[in-house]
Amino acid sequence: MKDKSFIPPERVLMGPGPSDVSQRILDAMARPTIGHLDPAFISMMDEIKGLLQYAFQTKNDLTFAVSAPGMAGMECCFANLVETEDKVIIAKNGFFGERMKENVERFGGVPIVIDDEWGTKVDLNKIQEALKQHSDAKIVASVHAETSTGALTDPESITKLAHDHGCLSIVDTVTGLAGVPLKVDDWNIDAIYSGTQKCLSASPGLSPISFSERAKEKIKNRKSKVKSWFLDLNLIMSYWEGEGGRSYHHTAPINALYGLHEALIILKEEGIENSWKRHMENHLLLREGLEKLNISYLVNKEDRLPQLNAIYIPEGVNDLESRQRLLNDFNLEIGAGLGVLAGKVWRIGLMGHSSKKENIDHCLQSLAQVI
Amino acid sequence: MKDKSFIPPERVLMGPGPSDVSQRILDAMARPTIGHLDPAFISMMDEIKGLLQYAFQTKNDLTFAVSAPGMAGMECCFANLVETEDKVIIAKNGFFGERMKENVERFGGVPIVIDDEWGTKVDLNKIQEALKQHSDAKIVASVHAETSTGALTDPESITKLAHDHGCLSIVDTVTGLAGVPLKVDDWNIDAIYSGTQKCLSASPGLSPISFSERAKEKIKNRKSKVKSWFLDLNLIMSYWEGEGGRSYHHTAPINALYGLHEALIILKEEGIENSWKRHMENHLLLREGLEKLNISYLVNKEDRLPQLNAIYIPEGVNDLESRQRLLNDFNLEIGAGLGVLAGKVWRIGLMGHSSKKENIDHCLQSLAQVI
Repeated sequence: MKDKSFIPPERVLMGPGPSDVSQRILDAMARPTIGHLDPAFISMMDEIKGLLQYAFQTKNDLTFAVSAPGMAGMECCFANLVETEDKVIIAKNGFFGERMKENVERFGGVPIVIDDEWGTKVDLNKIQEALKQHSDAKIVASVHAETSTGALTDPESITKLAHDHGCLSIVDTVTGLAGVPLKVDDWNIDAIYSGTQKCLSASPGLSPISFSERAKEKIKNRKSKVKSWFLDLNLIMSYWEGEGGRSYHHTAPINALYGLHEALIILKEEGIENSWKRHMENHLLLREGLEKLNISYLVNKEDRLPQLNAIYIPEGVNDLESRQRLLNDFNLEIGAGLGVLAGKVWRIGLMGHSSKKENIDHCLQSLAQVI
Repeated sequence: MKDKSFIPPERVLMGPGPSDVSQRILDAMARPTIGHLDPAFISMMDEIKGLLQYAFQTKNDLTFAVSAPGMAGMECCFANLVETEDKVIIAKNGFFGERMKENVERFGGVPIVIDDEWGTKVDLNKIQEALKQHSDAKIVASVHAETSTGALTDPESITKLAHDHGCLSIVDTVTGLAGVPLKVDDWNIDAIYSGTQKCLSASPGLSPISFSERAKEKIKNRKSKVKSWFLDLNLIMSYWEGEGGRSYHHTAPINALYGLHEALIILKEEGIENSWKRHMENHLLLREGLEKLNISYLVNKEDRLPQLNAIYIPEGVNDLESRQRLLNDFNLEIGAGLGVLAGKVWRIGLMGHSSKKENIDHCLQSLAQVI
């Protein structure tokens, strides 16, 4: 068989990410590749930094995009901030809390996992209790927007608790950024990571990230070297932060960064508050339609992420077959359940460019025919 | 100032990478994003695996692209193959040997660095000597194509020495793949990594990689967990290798992979031997022109990489000013010297899509006006 170019099918992406990438961003990614040390490219990198500061609502100087997907952003936070024997309190209420635990262990830290049921938000009392019990803890980590369940957690209060007990706060906002309110500076978050393929609707492959001065201090004063050369922020800082003489660290993913730049321009054109508002309004529209179909949500009304709607698979409906029909007959991708929720829930994403009325109509119409 | 879309200048990329990306590949990257668990995407991933096996000339089952640039590919090899206290002999004859040392140290290994002068190839006698002296060594690492100097090293002989002494062989071919002969299976290489932005001429951001059965055995039998979750091959294997039920590990860089797929199709259309031949023929053309300009090479004639021409900056010529003129007046990017060669050499790349006669003419004409 002759090898052929890959022509992807056209899908409507309403799963847990990637979301639909707009033509503007696809066009941006197709612009001619230039060198990563070209002055034109470096000034674009500076613009991305400013635009990411806007998206995160921060003035943090150490704000940039890791040259790898969101999971590398997570690893970048833990690899740099965790030292051997550091106790890390992990507020776990879904799949990604489990990943945090793995990260802490691999970098020689001691994870203290505080469990909440999947589909609920993090219980602040339990975090406070853990902080009292482990007065030598160094970090509290939590997930702003649990992609596995659609539960929204309050990183502001968790960060406050962490600081009251002398801990740093690491926040996962892979699915949160641009979809729900997030104010890194006002909330005093120390380290935060996200992805490009959720509410920013750029292609996957980069991880926006930001660190407070307090976090930078901890990194600069590490006793041991970071157990990753690629993700060592002491090295990366000079690549992204250096004025003028940017030194060579690695070859940046040029065209992916064109796409992220365009996605951030689009976000700024809309306005971050308007983006939050649009995600909420479309969530309410979808919810109304789902209720008419007698479909119910996993998460309590007040703790739901507008951009990630985890719904119970209606009784008697075959999980895999139905999703395959949605994909094959309606070109519609929705997400399966992850971990303990596999076979129990579906996840409908309304993220970024996918969060629009046409998609909601298409999704409700298609669902009605499949269930 | 209003934020604006980024429109890159059009360059001719003749530095150490990225190389010119063809319109076919740019167009491929701009195709609609689909989900990373979409059956259509998964079958494209399988095709990439087969195409990478062709590029590497291997049947290794564990052949795939790391979702991050070449330096992460390097880290993936060392993170997975080096355990605490493992002695690793590093054949260092340039900048990237130094990076290997950093990698070994960060993963708890003991680097034994065997130095050769920058711009020369690796001296096999020294490697043999080191293997005798360190009979407990576990790995020998070398750089097939030193991007910092343009020197070609013989990984086949180094691998043979390594195996004779019970060691595994790790080879860096970031700049080598598709530019000079490489036969992973015939040469029995155990672990090898490359980049997409050199002789494959895809956009930067992915790292093709391949592991022998012997390397896989070592990874499966590790005493300690890999000190990276993102790069742990035990986890990644199930993502790339799994038949049918591919499990979720991370969100792949969809559009970048479209580009790599197209780049590999283009390579197969040309034929790998023809690609090697084209790189050599164009190197000889460039060399002829440079000789007429009285420009001399850093590396001995017989050890030169055709795709990376490191030349001495002519006496009395200002390094930075000349490169700026080439960029601004001729839209031509060439590379500066790295490390100890900074200010002494320029690096002219003839990689992948950049390796063509028009570029050679343009480069020689422009150089003649600048020096």
